[in-house]
Amino acid sequence: MCFYSEGTPNFYMRPIEGLVMTVDLDTMEVLKFSDTGRGIPIPKSTNTDYRYNAHEKEPEMEPINPISMEQPKGPSFRVEDGHMVKWANWVFHLKADKRAGLVISRAMVRDSENGELRNVMYKGFSSELFVPYMDLEESWYFKSFMDAGEFGLGMSALPLVPLNDCPRYSYYMDGVFAASNGKPYVQHNMICLFECYACDISWRHSESQLLDFQIRETRPKVTLIARMIATVGNYDYIFDWEFQTDGLIRIKVGLSGMLMVKGSPYHRLYQVPNQDVMSGPLISQNVTGVVPDLFITFHLDMDIDGLNNSFVDVKLVKEHSLPGESPRKSYLKAKRKIAKTEKDAQIKLKLYDPSEFHIINPSRRSGLGNPTGYKIVLGGTAASLLDHDDPPQLRSSFSNNQIWVTLYNKIEQWAGGLLAYQSRGDDTLAVWDRAIENEDIVLWYTLGFHHIPCQEDFPVMPVVTSGFELKPVNFFESNPILRAAPAFEKDLPVCRPGASA
Amino acid sequence: MCFYSEGTPNFYMRPIEGLVMTVDLDTMEVLKFSDTGRGIPIPKSTNTDYRYNAHEKEPEMEPINPISMEQPKGPSFRVEDGHMVKWANWVFHLKADKRAGLVISRAMVRDSENGELRNVMYKGFSSELFVPYMDLEESWYFKSFMDAGEFGLGMSALPLVPLNDCPRYSYYMDGVFAASNGKPYVQHNMICLFECYACDISWRHSESQLLDFQIRETRPKVTLIARMIATVGNYDYIFDWEFQTDGLIRIKVGLSGMLMVKGSPYHRLYQVPNQDVMSGPLISQNVTGVVPDLFITFHLDMDIDGLNNSFVDVKLVKEHSLPGESPRKSYLKAKRKIAKTEKDAQIKLKLYDPSEFHIINPSRRSGLGNPTGYKIVLGGTAASLLDHDDPPQLRSSFSNNQIWVTLYNKIEQWAGGLLAYQSRGDDTLAVWDRAIENEDIVLWYTLGFHHIPCQEDFPVMPVVTSGFELKPVNFFESNPILRAAPAFEKDLPVCRPGASA
Repeated sequence: MCFYSEGTPNFYMRPIEGLVMTVDLDTMEVLKFSDTGRGIPIPKSTNTDYRYNAHEKEPEMEPINPISMEQPKGPSFRVEDGHMVKWANWVFHLKADKRAGLVISRAMVRDSENGELRNVMYKGFSSELFVPYMDLEESWYFKSFMDAGEFGLGMSALPLVPLNDCPRYSYYMDGVFAASNGKPYVQHNMICLFECYACDISWRHSESQLLDFQIRETRPKVTLIARMIATVGNYDYIFDWEFQTDGLIRIKVGLSGMLMVKGSPYHRLYQVPNQDVMSGPLISQNVTGVVPDLFITFHLDMDIDGLNNSFVDVKLVKEHSLPGESPRKSYLKAKRKIAKTEKDAQIKLKLYDPSEFHIINPSRRSGLGNPTGYKIVLGGTAASLLDHDDPPQLRSSFSNNQIWVTLYNKIEQWAGGLLAYQSRGDDTLAVWDRAIENEDIVLWYTLGFHHIPCQEDFPVMPVVTSGFELKPVNFFESNPILRAAPAFEKDLPVCRPGASA
Repeated sequence: MCFYSEGTPNFYMRPIEGLVMTVDLDTMEVLKFSDTGRGIPIPKSTNTDYRYNAHEKEPEMEPINPISMEQPKGPSFRVEDGHMVKWANWVFHLKADKRAGLVISRAMVRDSENGELRNVMYKGFSSELFVPYMDLEESWYFKSFMDAGEFGLGMSALPLVPLNDCPRYSYYMDGVFAASNGKPYVQHNMICLFECYACDISWRHSESQLLDFQIRETRPKVTLIARMIATVGNYDYIFDWEFQTDGLIRIKVGLSGMLMVKGSPYHRLYQVPNQDVMSGPLISQNVTGVVPDLFITFHLDMDIDGLNNSFVDVKLVKEHSLPGESPRKSYLKAKRKIAKTEKDAQIKLKLYDPSEFHIINPSRRSGLGNPTGYKIVLGGTAASLLDHDDPPQLRSSFSNNQIWVTLYNKIEQWAGGLLAYQSRGDDTLAVWDRAIENEDIVLWYTLGFHHIPCQEDFPVMPVVTSGFELKPVNFFESNPILRAAPAFEKDLPVCRPGASA
């Protein structure tokens, strides 16, 4: 693919449309040369530079005063042996990986009652990304990327920018990888770890029904976040693993960077004879924002209180009252169904047949007798709509369903297959049916986005975020942070403006 | 409904099950007395008190050092005439309302190019809440609350707790209402307004493809949030309206407080002969967490660049390639359909027929020729599954669909009808079909939750949050915060630990 870098570092916005060369990387031969974009001008460089120093004027808005999350006594986490993170009631191993980018392993949380360190997750990471662009022309059809398997999320992670990518008091971690020539090299500051108070509340209640006294109990929420950002060519993926003291783990992905755009013969919309022939909206002069889908699948090897777990579909089923039984006619009832096999646990979500999805340890029960577990709280639920036998979809069949559960197998880490580039779909999540009840199981969740570009995405996209949660469900005997302290005035830092004021 | 407050301020966890009196509030007569709960013990008070001072020991976790969002030069917003908020590129009116709780009106954003103040939303507020509990027994069937129309979200908002409900440097606003006896009274500090840096990124890109120089451009995100918390009896609803400099408005609702629980004859799960008869899980000894649904509908009177707007369903439709046309078989294509009537704009979401939903101004176009608009980015998409002719559903028919669009009518503000208590469903969103193309229209969105309680929700629930966004789409010519400044080290505050250190 060819771009023109004259007059801007943002060459992605200056495609030389239709000019594509196919190169054999072994022999370094040009196998094919195709130029289908004649008559399509290269879009201008105007307003494409996004560097701060390239701008003369500030945007039309009143300035925002300096704001900073301050921890004058320092952060509350420790990192031991370079990788073991200890914070509040959590302990986990954090490492940089060439392909997955960021790997959390052996995540354990301390029981709020007896202090026992309890297993939650053996290993969690982003296993594959699939980004099919919705344009089948000769110079576009092959743009259906698998960013982890083809490029490597860790390989694509560049050093994080202090204060801007991560807050003050962040801890930075390097990655050490083998380059394609076999030599070791260091990817500096590719992971950051920090505490965050995001102005949120952990739990609260005010009491107004009692006549003799008032209650105003509320607890601010402070979390620990591990972040890694992969810049795979034009696109930036912000991966956050956020840990809460109530046992919840939130996984978020933020999308930024540049769109993959297509040169267009049209300056303005009124020149377009038939908008139906365009593969996306006009987002700048001679620039089409081709529609992509985006699927990020996570490998979540849950080990709730040990190896042997089960996957439970807790359906909310509509029932009806008997005639004369009640003034009401209908209600929902929770019904639990344990998945016996991998096939039972291939979940294609149905909006009007709602369920909760739990991973439980059938052998360990709470004092009340509920099995201990975690549920996955879904977000970003788009599934791929491409035909299952479409070549890119064959390789990325993990995006056919939102949820899969497989029996643990050490070599089955990559949802799109071990060798993504060479895959014909014969080594993916979809081809691996085994019994999974009360076994060592892996949960796979695919976070999906449909994205129709707009002018605001030019020349660099404001971050779009989605995510999901792993949340304790009858894992603790009761709210584990009931006894947590509120924030007190006397603990607040005493601050004065910085040097520039 | 009766509760026992002995030994705890958290009487919600001590229901006197089945004891219900029906009272005529005009004549103050007891019309009916029902005691169906014989044999069901009152649950113990043990571990139900949530007050900080009631606990002797801290939870089993390492302490978290003080952390605070600091703004030594003060916040960057102004509030003029007690209500007009001005911050960065936003101007809006903020007020407390007895029924809606918090109302945003005349929200305008400054154009990043020419400084013009442009209309976005005439008025936005939470119009109704609907919480049907899934238990049809005599003492439960009537628990299908409409918290705005029956109790009033503003009436139920208690004073916010500084540092815990809202960060340092927040501005607090009172509400002034008429009590039921007609007398004016002041609801102190019921809204707070603050800036927040939640450790997030506005936009970023690192460049690794250029050989001669490196680019590391990233911008932290600072937002402005208006918050109000309604405590409707047992439950706390945290309403956030968050404004971003890129023009996005995020509306979030956090749920906390106490579950509405049911007394159970069972201490432990193994005693339950048939779990199917329970209307929810056992969450403490003799306590059932009855399953509720929760729907919060928002009135969003959008005025994109003026009064006359249209609602557009931008569908992503699957198409197929012709034989031999491409190695790929299928793709998605965006197709726009303008809603002509209110019926056209009753949207029941389909997960596998995805759409974006835009409100556009057909008369105002960007330089490229796209109509200016905002889209609604959905979250919390559960719809009510109750029968449409079920009495509570008749009154709360707004929860049949996720999206409705109506012609503006000054008196149609309340999705469940003006007089919710007396409604038989003859005055709701569902009964009002008019033409809505290029008119003054109101968008209604219902944020929906299904909630299966668990032990962690006892005795007070960790916050569960969901939300949706109103996001500019071809409203600006390009990314409006392209020229925003990064954070600089020299601007950071200089802090030392507080007095308690």
